Amino acid sequence: MESKKMQGESVPAKLLELRESIDNLDAAIILMLAERFRCTRVIGSLKAEHDLPPSDPDREVQQVVRLRALAANAGLAPDFAEGFHQYVVREVVRHHEQTRRDRAARP
Amino acid sequence: MESKKMQGESVPAKLLELRESIDNLDAAIILMLAERFRCTRVIGSLKAEHDLPPSDPDREVQQVVRLRALAANAGLAPDFAEGFHQYVVREVVRHHEQTRRDRAARP
Repeated sequence: MESKKMQGESVPAKLLELRESIDNLDAAIILMLAERFRCTRVIGSLKAEHDLPPSDPDREVQQVVRLRALAANAGLAPDFAEGFHQYVVREVVRHHEQTRRDRAARP
Repeated sequence: MESKKMQGESVPAKLLELRESIDNLDAAIILMLAERFRCTRVIGSLKAEHDLPPSDPDREVQQVVRLRALAANAGLAPDFAEGFHQYVVREVVRHHEQTRRDRAARP
């Protein structure tokens, strides 16, 4: 530890600095997810109105292929990117199904 | 359907337009996640080097409180935002643990 004293003392500062970047990135991601759901809410209404299915497996396959390639290029694990996309799409389909049920229940 | 003919014909175009926005947002989110993991990789090395624990429950609670509030303000379900954050943090802690094992295994 003696020889690393200076280095050791600078760790909390470096950690705090990186955590500030992470907090900024997280905020940006959350806001972009909010914008993404604004788009899918409109899509959900259009799909319910025109009796289109809530999910679109062909589109999802295309999205996954593209996002895996984007992730790999950026040094992000493609499986992680695909898992993230699945988490988002599950929520979107749940919204679309709810929108369809809400429309069907209207007097 | 007759009275909605014009509207019906414009649906695919509107859908395609929204999908383009979604594809852009997804690409931006993936790139920001890649940048987030660049930060946590450095944090993982610092933690392994200075024998700090891979996870930090206090920090995680603060992050969740902040992200839930950000999500609510932006019209995104706070539970969804929290689930997204858990998904990311699980992967980060897995990386930190791996980094620590890799260091311990060094001759």
